[in-house]
Amino acid sequence: MSQRTSSSSLAVVGIGNAIVDVIATADDGFIAQRKLDKGGMRLIDAEEAEALYGAMGPGTEMSGGSCANTMVGVAMLGGGAGYVGRVRDDQLGAVFAHDLRAAGVRFTAQPAKDGPPTARCLILVTPDAQRTMNTYLGACIHLQPGDIAAEEIAKGAVLYIEGYLWDQPPAKEACRKAMKIAAEHDREVALTLSDAFCVGRWREEFRELVKGPVDILFANESEILSLYQVTDFDAALKQVRKEVKIACLTRSEKGSVIVQGDKTYTIPAMPLGKVVDTTGAGDLYAAGFLYGYRQHGDLELAGKIASLAAGEVISHVGARPQQDLKALVRSKLGVK
Amino acid sequence: MSQRTSSSSLAVVGIGNAIVDVIATADDGFIAQRKLDKGGMRLIDAEEAEALYGAMGPGTEMSGGSCANTMVGVAMLGGGAGYVGRVRDDQLGAVFAHDLRAAGVRFTAQPAKDGPPTARCLILVTPDAQRTMNTYLGACIHLQPGDIAAEEIAKGAVLYIEGYLWDQPPAKEACRKAMKIAAEHDREVALTLSDAFCVGRWREEFRELVKGPVDILFANESEILSLYQVTDFDAALKQVRKEVKIACLTRSEKGSVIVQGDKTYTIPAMPLGKVVDTTGAGDLYAAGFLYGYRQHGDLELAGKIASLAAGEVISHVGARPQQDLKALVRSKLGVK
Repeated sequence: MSQRTSSSSLAVVGIGNAIVDVIATADDGFIAQRKLDKGGMRLIDAEEAEALYGAMGPGTEMSGGSCANTMVGVAMLGGGAGYVGRVRDDQLGAVFAHDLRAAGVRFTAQPAKDGPPTARCLILVTPDAQRTMNTYLGACIHLQPGDIAAEEIAKGAVLYIEGYLWDQPPAKEACRKAMKIAAEHDREVALTLSDAFCVGRWREEFRELVKGPVDILFANESEILSLYQVTDFDAALKQVRKEVKIACLTRSEKGSVIVQGDKTYTIPAMPLGKVVDTTGAGDLYAAGFLYGYRQHGDLELAGKIASLAAGEVISHVGARPQQDLKALVRSKLGVK
Repeated sequence: MSQRTSSSSLAVVGIGNAIVDVIATADDGFIAQRKLDKGGMRLIDAEEAEALYGAMGPGTEMSGGSCANTMVGVAMLGGGAGYVGRVRDDQLGAVFAHDLRAAGVRFTAQPAKDGPPTARCLILVTPDAQRTMNTYLGACIHLQPGDIAAEEIAKGAVLYIEGYLWDQPPAKEACRKAMKIAAEHDREVALTLSDAFCVGRWREEFRELVKGPVDILFANESEILSLYQVTDFDAALKQVRKEVKIACLTRSEKGSVIVQGDKTYTIPAMPLGKVVDTTGAGDLYAAGFLYGYRQHGDLELAGKIASLAAGEVISHVGARPQQDLKALVRSKLGVK
């Protein structure tokens, strides 16, 4: 690991869909009536976004985007983080860029001067704290290989990619270009499978990635079951440990399992009180793990930091931490 | 009162600055270093707004605006409410209009097609739950008499006006026009003094209003002391009860005092647990009072509903209620 960090100045650089979340509460009747994918992420077009927004209750706008949430978590924990993603030069684009930079994440991309507006994700949080996401990709659909600069990718000891990007062919090509740059600079590559429906759409390509350039895989239980088309978690575990260097598999309130070859680390969930909104749980888990992995090189400790960061983000509305994550790690785990 | 409501379909129609709040936490050092008016509201121009936003931490965007918050509260309690205010046809303007309508408030104004962007208020919440507000008025500065339609104003049994509007001459004229319409339709007029600095700027005009067209006055302790340039609350009380039909004076954790002629009602504060962010406390107090006053015609009960609505809004970040206010009033006060 030490050799790989020789010329990287940041712990992680991530590529993702740059999205502002619009969060509202809803009851299960609303989700059912509109045939939304409860607990999942669905892509919607501008027209549907407008109709759904019109029907939703009052919202709260907060910067989001799976990978961006993760980079904010890494930065808040004290690891350096950089982000590549595309916004428009509109009000929500300004909000997204401000929040990322205010959290200490390196973000150098210029907003697009034309094209669709900055992406938003209409998130409906039900009384069970589950979130149902409806994403209008807007400006994100123009993320492309030209957005990937070798010197930016090389800044990260780890390149982190969100599976959602596979839904847009130019974004996928951008990721492939970034992975090639990472390989040339001897960086590690991390991938999150993002969403079970997304795995369903891109299963074969994700399997090739896992067996190929990916060093660290993040997935929740339904995503890893979908990847291997099995119904049993242990069967998925058996398969994934043969195929990738490190796999971090999250299981909601059951915590997570980290496997590295024949080693297995079982990490408990660490909620901080009542679970209010599960949005961002996986994103902050990845943040905690990547920070802990780079900082301490200890997978079990990294898993605990991951669990704690996820526990913080589900204790309130919104996908970005509100407490001082560094202080939380210090007080709960006794490490920096 | 019954005569006055004969042809009004809403409990209250309000006029205010239409603002989206951008809320971030800050420490006292930040407030001091930037010489901000802790606890107050300060008007800033576009340039200062950009500089302050750049220096602030990550934010949460939520629709705000003092009077709009009050109208949302009235609507949530079950009284009908309407709103007059000005936004641009930009993303924050769409957010503002959506949130108002989604809360059930009548809002018929078309967004401006040109001119400055929708207003925003950069709110810094310090660890003591105090809020410091910095408002860039944007599109609000064009609120003018032409925005006041007699049929809209006549819809409310009470016309509610925020003192902040006095800072812009055309908005002030719009208010005067609305008060004239209210008088013609035999409606009551309510005014909030908004902010002690604002009272300092418009003391003489506010005093004329209180002695003249205003039936119901809302003020906090520092505002009423500033209005009468006294240092003693009882001295202010003595004066205000001679000048206005009903005065509702809020005193933070000491609750509120409502006076009507020689009658005095002392209402305790009703916080729901820990105080997190005092933004919107006065706005929701006014909402609860106006709803209770119109619904029950009982000033003491109206004061309790006011105290409860304020207690809800200070229990979380943001100036609009998150709990079901109707249910809260039913469960805590045993009334509808």
